[in-house]
Amino acid sequence: MEVTSDKVTGIRIAYVGGGSRGWAWMLMKDLALEPQLSGTVYLYDIDYQATRDNASIGNSLSQKEDSLGKWKYEVVRTLDEALRRADFVVLSILPGTFQEMHTDVHLPEKYGIYQSVGDTTGPGGLMRGLRTIPIYREIARKIRDCCPKAWVINYTNPMSMCVRTLYKEFPEIKAFGCCHEVFSTQTLLAEVVREMRGIDGISRKEIKVNLLGINHFAWIDRASYKNIDLYPLYQDFVERHYLEGYELHGPWRDSYFSLAEKVKFDLFRRYGLIATGGDRHLAEFMPSSHYLKDPEMVEEWKFHLTPVKWRVENSKAREELQQRLLKGEENIELSQSGEEGVQQIKALVGLGELVTNVNLPNRGQIDNIPGKMVVETNAFFSYDSVRPIWAGSLPAEINALIARHIFNQEAIVEAAFSGDKSRALQAFLNDPLVTIEPGKASSLFHEMLESTQEYLPPEFLSSTTR
Amino acid sequence: MEVTSDKVTGIRIAYVGGGSRGWAWMLMKDLALEPQLSGTVYLYDIDYQATRDNASIGNSLSQKEDSLGKWKYEVVRTLDEALRRADFVVLSILPGTFQEMHTDVHLPEKYGIYQSVGDTTGPGGLMRGLRTIPIYREIARKIRDCCPKAWVINYTNPMSMCVRTLYKEFPEIKAFGCCHEVFSTQTLLAEVVREMRGIDGISRKEIKVNLLGINHFAWIDRASYKNIDLYPLYQDFVERHYLEGYELHGPWRDSYFSLAEKVKFDLFRRYGLIATGGDRHLAEFMPSSHYLKDPEMVEEWKFHLTPVKWRVENSKAREELQQRLLKGEENIELSQSGEEGVQQIKALVGLGELVTNVNLPNRGQIDNIPGKMVVETNAFFSYDSVRPIWAGSLPAEINALIARHIFNQEAIVEAAFSGDKSRALQAFLNDPLVTIEPGKASSLFHEMLESTQEYLPPEFLSSTTR
Amino acid sequence: MEVTSDKVTGIRIAYVGGGSRGWAWMLMKDLALEPQLSGTVYLYDIDYQATRDNASIGNSLSQKEDSLGKWKYEVVRTLDEALRRADFVVLSILPGTFQEMHTDVHLPEKYGIYQSVGDTTGPGGLMRGLRTIPIYREIARKIRDCCPKAWVINYTNPMSMCVRTLYKEFPEIKAFGCCHEVFSTQTLLAEVVREMRGIDGISRKEIKVNLLGINHFAWIDRASYKNIDLYPLYQDFVERHYLEGYELHGPWRDSYFSLAEKVKFDLFRRYGLIATGGDRHLAEFMPSSHYLKDPEMVEEWKFHLTPVKWRVENSKAREELQQRLLKGEENIELSQSGEEGVQQIKALVGLGELVTNVNLPNRGQIDNIPGKMVVETNAFFSYDSVRPIWAGSLPAEINALIARHIFNQEAIVEAAFSGDKSRALQAFLNDPLVTIEPGKASSLFHEMLESTQEYLPPEFLSSTTR
Amino acid sequence: MEVTSDKVTGIRIAYVGGGSRGWAWMLMKDLALEPQLSGTVYLYDIDYQATRDNASIGNSLSQKEDSLGKWKYEVVRTLDEALRRADFVVLSILPGTFQEMHTDVHLPEKYGIYQSVGDTTGPGGLMRGLRTIPIYREIARKIRDCCPKAWVINYTNPMSMCVRTLYKEFPEIKAFGCCHEVFSTQTLLAEVVREMRGIDGISRKEIKVNLLGINHFAWIDRASYKNIDLYPLYQDFVERHYLEGYELHGPWRDSYFSLAEKVKFDLFRRYGLIATGGDRHLAEFMPSSHYLKDPEMVEEWKFHLTPVKWRVENSKAREELQQRLLKGEENIELSQSGEEGVQQIKALVGLGELVTNVNLPNRGQIDNIPGKMVVETNAFFSYDSVRPIWAGSLPAEINALIARHIFNQEAIVEAAFSGDKSRALQAFLNDPLVTIEPGKASSLFHEMLESTQEYLPPEFLSSTTR
Repeated sequence: MEVTSDKVTGIRIAYVGGGSRGWAWMLMKDLALEPQLSGTVYLYDIDYQATRDNASIGNSLSQKEDSLGKWKYEVVRTLDEALRRADFVVLSILPGTFQEMHTDVHLPEKYGIYQSVGDTTGPGGLMRGLRTIPIYREIARKIRDCCPKAWVINYTNPMSMCVRTLYKEFPEIKAFGCCHEVFSTQTLLAEVVREMRGIDGISRKEIKVNLLGINHFAWIDRASYKNIDLYPLYQDFVERHYLEGYELHGPWRDSYFSLAEKVKFDLFRRYGLIATGGDRHLAEFMPSSHYLKDPEMVEEWKFHLTPVKWRVENSKAREELQQRLLKGEENIELSQSGEEGVQQIKALVGLGELVTNVNLPNRGQIDNIPGKMVVETNAFFSYDSVRPIWAGSLPAEINALIARHIFNQEAIVEAAFSGDKSRALQAFLNDPLVTIEPGKASSLFHEMLESTQEYLPPEFLSSTTR
Repeated sequence: MEVTSDKVTGIRIAYVGGGSRGWAWMLMKDLALEPQLSGTVYLYDIDYQATRDNASIGNSLSQKEDSLGKWKYEVVRTLDEALRRADFVVLSILPGTFQEMHTDVHLPEKYGIYQSVGDTTGPGGLMRGLRTIPIYREIARKIRDCCPKAWVINYTNPMSMCVRTLYKEFPEIKAFGCCHEVFSTQTLLAEVVREMRGIDGISRKEIKVNLLGINHFAWIDRASYKNIDLYPLYQDFVERHYLEGYELHGPWRDSYFSLAEKVKFDLFRRYGLIATGGDRHLAEFMPSSHYLKDPEMVEEWKFHLTPVKWRVENSKAREELQQRLLKGEENIELSQSGEEGVQQIKALVGLGELVTNVNLPNRGQIDNIPGKMVVETNAFFSYDSVRPIWAGSLPAEINALIARHIFNQEAIVEAAFSGDKSRALQAFLNDPLVTIEPGKASSLFHEMLESTQEYLPPEFLSSTTR
Repeated sequence: MEVTSDKVTGIRIAYVGGGSRGWAWMLMKDLALEPQLSGTVYLYDIDYQATRDNASIGNSLSQKEDSLGKWKYEVVRTLDEALRRADFVVLSILPGTFQEMHTDVHLPEKYGIYQSVGDTTGPGGLMRGLRTIPIYREIARKIRDCCPKAWVINYTNPMSMCVRTLYKEFPEIKAFGCCHEVFSTQTLLAEVVREMRGIDGISRKEIKVNLLGINHFAWIDRASYKNIDLYPLYQDFVERHYLEGYELHGPWRDSYFSLAEKVKFDLFRRYGLIATGGDRHLAEFMPSSHYLKDPEMVEEWKFHLTPVKWRVENSKAREELQQRLLKGEENIELSQSGEEGVQQIKALVGLGELVTNVNLPNRGQIDNIPGKMVVETNAFFSYDSVRPIWAGSLPAEINALIARHIFNQEAIVEAAFSGDKSRALQAFLNDPLVTIEPGKASSLFHEMLESTQEYLPPEFLSSTTR
Repeated sequence: MEVTSDKVTGIRIAYVGGGSRGWAWMLMKDLALEPQLSGTVYLYDIDYQATRDNASIGNSLSQKEDSLGKWKYEVVRTLDEALRRADFVVLSILPGTFQEMHTDVHLPEKYGIYQSVGDTTGPGGLMRGLRTIPIYREIARKIRDCCPKAWVINYTNPMSMCVRTLYKEFPEIKAFGCCHEVFSTQTLLAEVVREMRGIDGISRKEIKVNLLGINHFAWIDRASYKNIDLYPLYQDFVERHYLEGYELHGPWRDSYFSLAEKVKFDLFRRYGLIATGGDRHLAEFMPSSHYLKDPEMVEEWKFHLTPVKWRVENSKAREELQQRLLKGEENIELSQSGEEGVQQIKALVGLGELVTNVNLPNRGQIDNIPGKMVVETNAFFSYDSVRPIWAGSLPAEINALIARHIFNQEAIVEAAFSGDKSRALQAFLNDPLVTIEPGKASSLFHEMLESTQEYLPPEFLSSTTR
């Protein structure tokens, strides 16, 4: 990197998962809109073709007149090439294919277990973890060898297990995990201020929160807008809307991702704190009888079970879009994605500071969670440093919900590292969505393992479960 | 207390729950069999009549020729009188009556929730906690005022919540909680050595274990007899017996307390560690689908749901026995109870040392459990001190089971201290035996509350749940 | 307080030490220059006359046209009146009089012990601590009773002991301690950038640092200006200047407070980190043979032993100034003081956020210092919250310097709380400036105690030292 | 190892430093007196001749009729041979020769710095640490490779740095450090009981203590004999004897190791706790003006500066003794050495349990010392496990003394690991015995380094100090 007082040029970003037809484009746009940074993005993906196309798209974008940040996109054939001398590493991969994801989400339905996402926790999330950890161990080792000082930004799910694996494999890694789920809750809170106080046009960044928990299940215990404490407002708002829900982004039936915040409101009424994460995610962390007993109950709570079929179709649509972009039949509209990656990079190269929520190993930011476990709280980003901000303690009754996930996830990580399939099974059996009898749950576990076996730690194939 | 080099005389013991027709007699016998100690036991109980009768029985016992320890038993009318200038305080009470216990255990059955004991966890255990905490707060305050330097030995359940309450109300208290459930596991391990190695006559005290967990759900990760590692032996033993179970104390159908260790064996096969606590207790800490789905499943696992009816009958029989003892129609046979209270008292007055399992606030004895939570591990007893011995870390997949109980119990304690009924409800909903829908679970919770209302924190009566 | 979206009015500030002829005026000016805040300042001091005069001065100031923040100043006769319903409490007192301060600083000189300030550590600092702690215990209790939710800003020295006392007496207090010594180091670093890179006009606030240590002895392990790492620059700067020193604010001989940064440079060359605190403070934390052996050595290092005589004269001059201000013979010039109190208040009422250095109990912000000890690191100020930012670990060789002070200060605090004079004596004997033989040091200790006896914990008067 | 219920045979012990003419013989005798253990001791030393002679002596001893434990002694030529498949490793080496030790102890005298031992702290102890750490790193690596499950017993000084190095290099090592200094204090306490209570014949093992601190500077905060609290007795004893001292083992002038306990008594009168470690060791941890200003002061306190000359002479006498033993001109008298190594080995193989003081990384046994630092407290030895017993907190004023040593030692360890000579220098300058000006202290440091240079970490030779 070279630096002048207001610009940093020559930045090298390794993008792992560079064939992505969503996240990659968002980063390209955000980079193009940032005048103070420039450099080269090395795109790497197991799908070489998609990556090469993305490089072309990125380079075209850079040549557009309204591109303020001039970036070069290069496609590389190996992970090593991408990482070598990288200043930043972006990790955004799909571990396995939609076929495995299909099993993650839908195989449990045969056993009466319903998941709204299936990528973080529940049978699907844990299985996805087992599949991702070996890949992440390899990534961590290569970062250690190729660019040990690089900042590593993870977007891949299951977030906590991914970040935990990076640190467990290479403890000196400078990694953190980013997720925009908290942003949506900030947006909701801005809407609360609008409705309850008549103040329009508040940006979600102006909503200040203290956050503590784990990814997709982090809780806000303090929220304010300027000098206004948002707790009493939110309380009134929830009392007004919890029965019917609140459709901030249009009718909840519109898409698989639409919702009416009913789970979030219900959790508030029960626990007194504001849960972040969309209802689809929140529901999966709770006992299944609460929100996910069956599709009818999901319907009542006004959210959706996202079918993988939809993802497959969406993916096809994006492939076609990529081709149109490539041929110039369609243009990428330059607009902020709402993601914070580029702002974080700016802060890390020394251009400004930032307080935002990230996933990091616990170094004391949450009092009543053991060290090293990956938690989500605010952190302070400044020149070459990301430092967690002390967030306090989780109320016992919420920690009772969270702790079981933390240790279940840790058990999955340790199972994958040690190759001990039995430990993974016990974590699986202890997931709150797995309420079926152990014998059946074990069958499900093995069925799921089988269908994702090519991605598992090799010892899993030979070992038996106790 | 007065001391000569080999005797300690003039010891003052306050026995709270002194009308007890079981524990009190055991202590009397153990004291009578111990030649190095003597003094006065101040019996206090809300049942004055039973206490007075126990004092008579105790004093008769002291006059028996074969009584080595000469103790005086005095009945007192107030807790303060019992505690004033006490050197030791024994807490062994029934919080509420069998009527409340009946609700604890059987009311949930209407909702399809089965409990084998109902005094530690599950709906019954949590409710019993709510009832006990106000009583224990008062006891703690009176100990602070009357005998702040006394050693306090707790036998009352729910153990963890009782000990936690004592320390939360009076942080300088010198209290610990004792439970004999681990002893039974040591006895089983002695039997393992007998069967697998042909060595007879091993005392359970010769079985050395490292223990970590919480009361009634503590796990042994190291076990040995002299120079023999018991892990491989136990493994073979379990493989041999897990299908049919092992009836150490006669046929499992013989009594409500008999069992075949099938749950313990199953947990070993699944988790690789030896769980302590009888099957009746262990089952209640696990998701109900594992061992407690319905009476048929309990039958398969060869243990029992202990009906409170039995306790009522047993109690009546004990009342009659007390009368016969009083009238001299029957004699107390002098024999060691197997409890360790007197050995602990001996060590604490300086006569010998002892390593045994107790319940204490975590001061680091378990690495991956937050401070202050009450845990069960070994501790070292010596002159006027009880010091926990470092026990290491719980495996993640077991901590995933334990942590939710630790924080659920903490939530109950905080709910009782603050009078916030909602927090108690959320802990209740999160109990692994409560797998019914939240609406029904909430009805059950309120029904149970109502039937125990006279013992609840007063704020509970006025507040509503969210 | 009343709030509109961009203003907070009706703020109640209790100013303890309101007769101050320096700090009080600075706060008045900063408040006058801040348009978004207004309210009432309740001035309290044992010197009622001075306080009344300050109130008049403050109110005149508010009436000036260029005063943007309109504040009312009221003088009150009791601490309770000041605190009642306060939103903020400012603590800025002189514990004792200049007479006691004279003993603190100059009595040790009879024994060959030289102190450059004598208010933080060394014989003078420890003695001042003993005198301040009883006063601060009373303040803490009154805050608990009158305004338990108020934010408490401490400026009094010895900083660490003052803040520790507040939390020890009232653990729920919302207190933090502020000190501008770090600002001077930031100013020096701005000068480094100017000299080494030719960039002018950098504000000290643009110099970003990570700080860890204790008040007046905190260390910077990362420093940057925008995208420039300041470590290599500072290294070159120090190599260039360490022999002669660097006179940032004019010739070092000009005043008792002037210096040439030679101690700071020497510490950098030895330890590799940048110490904050002026040389006068830094020298007192080190073994006396390093910088404070005798006045000649101090001269060599180009700083000064500040005589209390100067403080007395300065105080007289300020009294006269106060009278001239009161009579309108002189005007207070409205200018920023450089202190951050008003910015902190703004952030705490919700108008903006702030990252700056403060003194707080350790909740994990420094890894290798025990909990509860008061440390200085960055913290994040936002609406009604001050949260420490994780600062990492102190290098062992620096912690070896700091830890002895932390525990010495804790011993003083415990001695004052318990009234055990012997513990204070042992802390005194262990101070790095006290290199004389214990017998003589003990004489000095008792002589010093005697001359400050009216402020000591009452038990000190009757107890003897071991 | 093979085990029968009461014996363990075939134990393999690697003795590193097997040419020792003191410790080795003690172990041989203790092994010979223990009927339940047998096996082979592999002696390794850089002095092959001495080792071979020791093997002969050991084997002769085994053949004596009254030898109950039949051990074979084998001399090996490499460390690897000794360690391969070892069950136990005993480390008892002299790092460097008496020539380096001479420099450690006597070179500082040129600068007016006097040391009574010079092997633990002070200039000599720190220098010895720098010399030992590279050797211990190699030993740790070889243990990892040859016998990772072996128990490692360290006797070498500087104890804390040796044990810290073993764990830092190989974190899974099962090592602990043993020192008999605490035993002497127990013996003194037995004498206290004799004198004050007239009870004769108490063994030091009957004196129960709670210990906390670091090797050679650990403090007893609770002591008892049976049911007698020894604190009031010791207090009276000290008041009676502190002026003249107490000569438990004959006149203090008799030998360089004799003493009158005056330092120990003085520390008790000042700090209220009983320091363990002989006066020669204790004095070195305190500021030099307290007990070690000059030889006259040492004389007043009635202990000695042990000259290395004496060690050289003593060593020669022991060489001659070895030859006489070898030739059968003299016999080893079979008697217990008073060391506990064999009792520890017995407990670790499962034959009995033991509570005794050892040096271990802090895992919470001392509350207010950071994790990983090596501390001395009681631990519980049982089958294949050594577990620290929770010892509580150090009083602040004593922690102020200890913490600086802990971090100074840590700085030395880190300096040796990283090869950064400057960090070692700063630790050296901060030692309480180093009260001379930094310039002179630095000269001393470099002079000392030079004379021990062949044992230093290689980077030390090329790097310069800041």
